[in-house]
Amino acid sequence: MTIPKAYQELCELARECAIVESIDALLGWDEQTMLPPMNGQYRAQQMKYVAGLIHNQRTNPKWTQLLDELENGDWRPNPNSDQHTTLKQLRRKVDRAARQPKELVQDLAEATVIGQQVWAKARKENCFADFLPALRKIVELKQQQADALGHKGNRYDALLDEYEPLATTEAIEIVLSELKQKLVPLIQRIAESQHRPSSSVVRGPFPIENQRKFATQAATAIGFDFQRGRLDVTTHPFCTEMGPNDCRITTRYDEVFFNTAFFGVLHEAGHGMYEQGLRSSMYGLPSGQYCSLGIHESQSRLWENMVGRSFGFWEHFYPSAQSLFPEPLNGGTCEEFYAAVNAVEPSLIRVEADEATYNLHIIIRFELEQELISGNLPVEDLPQAWRQKYHDALGVTPETDRDGCLQDVHWSAGLFGYFPTYSLGNLYAAQLFQQAENELGDLQLQFRDGKFDLLHQWLNEKIYSHGQNYPADKLVENATGHPLSSQPFYDYLFKKLGPIYQL
Amino acid sequence: MTIPKAYQELCELARECAIVESIDALLGWDEQTMLPPMNGQYRAQQMKYVAGLIHNQRTNPKWTQLLDELENGDWRPNPNSDQHTTLKQLRRKVDRAARQPKELVQDLAEATVIGQQVWAKARKENCFADFLPALRKIVELKQQQADALGHKGNRYDALLDEYEPLATTEAIEIVLSELKQKLVPLIQRIAESQHRPSSSVVRGPFPIENQRKFATQAATAIGFDFQRGRLDVTTHPFCTEMGPNDCRITTRYDEVFFNTAFFGVLHEAGHGMYEQGLRSSMYGLPSGQYCSLGIHESQSRLWENMVGRSFGFWEHFYPSAQSLFPEPLNGGTCEEFYAAVNAVEPSLIRVEADEATYNLHIIIRFELEQELISGNLPVEDLPQAWRQKYHDALGVTPETDRDGCLQDVHWSAGLFGYFPTYSLGNLYAAQLFQQAENELGDLQLQFRDGKFDLLHQWLNEKIYSHGQNYPADKLVENATGHPLSSQPFYDYLFKKLGPIYQL
Repeated sequence: MTIPKAYQELCELARECAIVESIDALLGWDEQTMLPPMNGQYRAQQMKYVAGLIHNQRTNPKWTQLLDELENGDWRPNPNSDQHTTLKQLRRKVDRAARQPKELVQDLAEATVIGQQVWAKARKENCFADFLPALRKIVELKQQQADALGHKGNRYDALLDEYEPLATTEAIEIVLSELKQKLVPLIQRIAESQHRPSSSVVRGPFPIENQRKFATQAATAIGFDFQRGRLDVTTHPFCTEMGPNDCRITTRYDEVFFNTAFFGVLHEAGHGMYEQGLRSSMYGLPSGQYCSLGIHESQSRLWENMVGRSFGFWEHFYPSAQSLFPEPLNGGTCEEFYAAVNAVEPSLIRVEADEATYNLHIIIRFELEQELISGNLPVEDLPQAWRQKYHDALGVTPETDRDGCLQDVHWSAGLFGYFPTYSLGNLYAAQLFQQAENELGDLQLQFRDGKFDLLHQWLNEKIYSHGQNYPADKLVENATGHPLSSQPFYDYLFKKLGPIYQL
Repeated sequence: MTIPKAYQELCELARECAIVESIDALLGWDEQTMLPPMNGQYRAQQMKYVAGLIHNQRTNPKWTQLLDELENGDWRPNPNSDQHTTLKQLRRKVDRAARQPKELVQDLAEATVIGQQVWAKARKENCFADFLPALRKIVELKQQQADALGHKGNRYDALLDEYEPLATTEAIEIVLSELKQKLVPLIQRIAESQHRPSSSVVRGPFPIENQRKFATQAATAIGFDFQRGRLDVTTHPFCTEMGPNDCRITTRYDEVFFNTAFFGVLHEAGHGMYEQGLRSSMYGLPSGQYCSLGIHESQSRLWENMVGRSFGFWEHFYPSAQSLFPEPLNGGTCEEFYAAVNAVEPSLIRVEADEATYNLHIIIRFELEQELISGNLPVEDLPQAWRQKYHDALGVTPETDRDGCLQDVHWSAGLFGYFPTYSLGNLYAAQLFQQAENELGDLQLQFRDGKFDLLHQWLNEKIYSHGQNYPADKLVENATGHPLSSQPFYDYLFKKLGPIYQL
């Protein structure tokens, strides 16, 4: 049976949407990297105009009309084919949009714009009380949104579904609490270890231009394609795509701390390689779009940590690092440097956390936001609950809310259900990396030789090329033969940290 | 009488147009400076989409409706007021659009897109015959366009009007042929002079990073505001604005030739200071938009040449130049350097021409394009006519059409009537500069002290702040007390070149 005309029209509609969204992405990227300081207000007007265009496209009744026509017709594409995925995912999108009353959507948009402004000020002034009313309003609206979207008893499921489609709170809860039970004693043992790697080698003068060169060299080596992308400077690093061959990563440089820019670039390059690996021919359609935030984060963490913080990687790159940064590095060994970039230290701030403690930061947020959404935790009790959880899980207690529950932007922006995707990313990354080692031979030997292409190709085949054709858990199970589990991540961590801390 | 609601609506419509045009400008700027090489095709799709939005806005029947309502009402804003200008200029725009049949507009759009592609290839391969059919088609369509727009016997007037509103071919012809009569013998005398400044001092090595620093320092000093603008690298330098506080200039660096980037930056900064000087509060309305291309060019040439190639300027900047570029400059004097950047040498290529010969390149094109549009010069005879004119005016004859009539993009893009605005710019610049000197005292003394603000303020008051409230010739006459004339430019040139060449 030939492809119906309505399907072609549906694809055209989706591709036109993608064009406008890509223009929005350019305006956003430029704002964060290039915009002359005084033009912020006009940029807001430009982005508001484009937001209006996007809104008009998303609410076009043509979507439902075409989908209804196709679903009621005789044409039935094969399950998990690109065409099947197009219909399924666009229907999902249209339905989620239709279930939310217009008033609620507008209220949420307003509350989160205000929320972020209030949060930024409250954080700066370390005053949770100032943020409380705005946060309370946002939590209420997110509860309403979850109920409007629909769920089987657990409101949080409905919110999670936005970022990690089809995932359930229950499944994530089981795997993350298993992980927590393993991580807490591991971190305890590390804290008690007598062997502490010196971090002085990653501190101290790293000239920015050479950092840029080195990070670019490493990003190129692992597979980020600068013919189809860029690297620029920003305040809050991110990766964005604005075309099938235009993926831009950003970083910030710290002249006295190596890790910020270098591992930041590998992280964003990991995101970027996923975007660059999506099929260009499917650009704008679900089969050419990333599967879930958890899968996206698995790609960034895999290249940042499992590759970028591996010993084989540094056997290859350490001589370059020494020649670019003679002052801090010439006296030291590759082994010392490797230990320094893998040092574990419980801390208060998520974005500065090491690989071992990072997931505890996430689990705390995941637990707290579930309780906020269920209504079991009154919003005013958040600071105290935060302190208690940090004390119990990490043995550190923030003295201020600025270093506590005010540190992240997410909740002020209404992003409830987003945090667990960071940990899912870590777990998926470890599962994928373990399987890749099983199939591709000793990866550390390959890295030592500067060879990253086999791993890159493997991810391309197993992850990138499928777009949204499978849900995240199925995609990883197809690639690894195993359902979501915390064991590979824990094994990976112990294998690395055991020798460093002589556990 | 209060301002009618229809006027507010008209302004809103114009401002919304400006938002979309500014987004188009960002897409264009990014394409020329930042775009990853492989994303060109998708960028074309994005720009095509935005071109569609712009087209829809320009053809919105609301324009005529609101203008009709206002013109038939009782409200009469004062002549040359902002409100009067808004009505007058928007009516002008709407009328010009209405006079052109849709089919002709589309044919022209197509013919010039193809024209530019064919031209680029023909130029590369030095084959005018390949370009001939495309150029013939464009000339025919431009003739039709001129007739559709309407004129009083001289078709060229109708085309000129697009770039230099209300200017007449006759007036420009008189002043440019006067100029030519003075320039040809001057250039002859220079060619015969025994005193030839050495140009070796502006030849190599000028490390690019230091060129960037130096040009940025100079652009800042003359008044380009980097809080409201940027400087980036591109292949074909330009200045573009995409917001009331977002004007971006571009340049290209030549490691072995000082003039390219440095005077290029001053030139674009001159354009940029005009844009930055337009009233932000009037952004998107005619009173906040540049007056004509001739006036725009007067601002770039004034800062590039009358300021940037003046002796006072170099008395101030030469020590910085020496410390940034010790290798080529440390042996030489400021006087030698000043003479080198003002050297005159008849050549074949317009964009590389010096101040004295530049206008002859323009006059040749102005004469030829008038004949093409009138039909007096058959398109196939263009190469021969070009060679003859170069021989007669500049004493040089191109051996190839690549260095002859194929060198500029303008005709392939349908830009007939554009060239004379370059010379008008030079003449206006000299008139303005002369008047500024009359009013502000010895500018060279000010430049020597690094003081450019009085001149900048004067231009702000006389030119920038008026937007389109006056036509170009009136604006300059208001500022200087004199109508358009070639005398100040010739006087300026002779005063500078006389001593250098000991004429």
